[in-house]
Amino acid sequence: MAKKKISTPGILIAIGGAEDKFEEKYILNRFFEFSGGKKACIAILPSASQDERTGPAYHSIFSDFGAKTVDILPIFHHDDAYDETAVKTLEQATGIFLTGGDQNKITAVLSKTPAFEAIQKAHLKGAVIGGTSAGAAALSDPMIGGGSRGSLARSGMAKIAPGLGLAKSLIVDQHFHQRERLGRLMYAVMLNSHLVGVGVDEDTAAVIHPNEQIEVIGRGTVTIVDARKVQMFNPAGVPDKSPLVFSNIVLHTLTHGSRFSLKTSSLILERRSRGD
Amino acid sequence: MAKKKISTPGILIAIGGAEDKFEEKYILNRFFEFSGGKKACIAILPSASQDERTGPAYHSIFSDFGAKTVDILPIFHHDDAYDETAVKTLEQATGIFLTGGDQNKITAVLSKTPAFEAIQKAHLKGAVIGGTSAGAAALSDPMIGGGSRGSLARSGMAKIAPGLGLAKSLIVDQHFHQRERLGRLMYAVMLNSHLVGVGVDEDTAAVIHPNEQIEVIGRGTVTIVDARKVQMFNPAGVPDKSPLVFSNIVLHTLTHGSRFSLKTSSLILERRSRGD
Repeated sequence: MAKKKISTPGILIAIGGAEDKFEEKYILNRFFEFSGGKKACIAILPSASQDERTGPAYHSIFSDFGAKTVDILPIFHHDDAYDETAVKTLEQATGIFLTGGDQNKITAVLSKTPAFEAIQKAHLKGAVIGGTSAGAAALSDPMIGGGSRGSLARSGMAKIAPGLGLAKSLIVDQHFHQRERLGRLMYAVMLNSHLVGVGVDEDTAAVIHPNEQIEVIGRGTVTIVDARKVQMFNPAGVPDKSPLVFSNIVLHTLTHGSRFSLKTSSLILERRSRGD
Repeated sequence: MAKKKISTPGILIAIGGAEDKFEEKYILNRFFEFSGGKKACIAILPSASQDERTGPAYHSIFSDFGAKTVDILPIFHHDDAYDETAVKTLEQATGIFLTGGDQNKITAVLSKTPAFEAIQKAHLKGAVIGGTSAGAAALSDPMIGGGSRGSLARSGMAKIAPGLGLAKSLIVDQHFHQRERLGRLMYAVMLNSHLVGVGVDEDTAAVIHPNEQIEVIGRGTVTIVDARKVQMFNPAGVPDKSPLVFSNIVLHTLTHGSRFSLKTSSLILERRSRGD
């Protein structure tokens, strides 16, 4: 496929963390189906995680679904990201899954490496990139690297760091309502008001289609935080935790089956049962 | 003033609770000044409170400021609201202060009584009505009588009850960010989308001027939740705690010195020191 002149980048799936891994496994199954189902070649990147069981847990789920190949890529240090076998597996993957953990670890390990170039290449050729929790955060650039809780936007309340930048025109936050992260996402989009904030709840995913539509799947909500028309009255950059004074942040909250168009900034309701 | 034919209703002061009562007492002092300063006749209504010390605490503060008269009106039951002396005191007050406690108690005690008519009359003649916490909630109609915490708007998450209705075109919530009440205020304005939500933090007040400008004073923030252009995709009325799916709720967050015009739905920045 690398030789094709025209191709569509793959779908991105930003999962808000704590997705069901034991019952219906709905979201992981959608990732598997989007990646090609029985024909899927899935690469699992556990770089964010400290827990050795993380990769194998996903391996067993995607294998049980019936993927053609499932590989865990043990890329935990910058050097690992130069491993030729790993790079080749990433280039040939139809689905790449970034696990949870610490998003700062993902970027530290992958940044400017052959492994990351392979992910970009695969994505541009059509591979699906899914990330849960830290893996979802790392999809955008900049990304939210950490921060504090609460619905009040305070100056300096989140660490804004370079991300992988696979998702364009948006910035992701996760465990969104469970950890009360509206404030820090508003802060992030006020600092980067050309980007739309996408706050994803646990066991929920924002499926980002190449046509810039966001489709919501799962049990919780996805909240769109649109600061593209914001007026700010104090500088967001001053890291003093004081409240940001602003006008015109627009919120949209979506559940399973609804879609939001980033192009028109509007919600498209398309309610479907989870069985579809 | 009672003999004037044309008069302007008084200022309303919605205080988010936990206002400073021991140091600068800035907000209470502003209530005192708005009420006429040394010429103020202040009536304290502790109807919301179960604590006998509530009325006397405010009495001592307003007396220390130098108000001309300060009266605690012991209206704790519906019958008390028919007491002629109390009614006369309310009619002649230049400032009426509703304490914190339970807003449902305020409306239960005052609803359709001579005391409430006296408050309305005094307000229409120009008396300032201030309320803190429960006293702030009760100013609007409907009011938020209680509810649950969190920034996610869920169906049925707040009790919406009749309020005093002194404040028009808005609905107040208090202890706003301290108790994470954005969700319930969004729910309330989605049920009543002609009203603007005004979420007031602790030790902060929304001063509602007769020209429909809201002025913020104090240490925290006031958040305006404007659902006048909201699109809803599931019914807010179903009391099942499921997330509300919506598009286009507009947020504005203000701090001390800024003003918001309810007429034009826009923020007017007028930063001033607290010493003004």
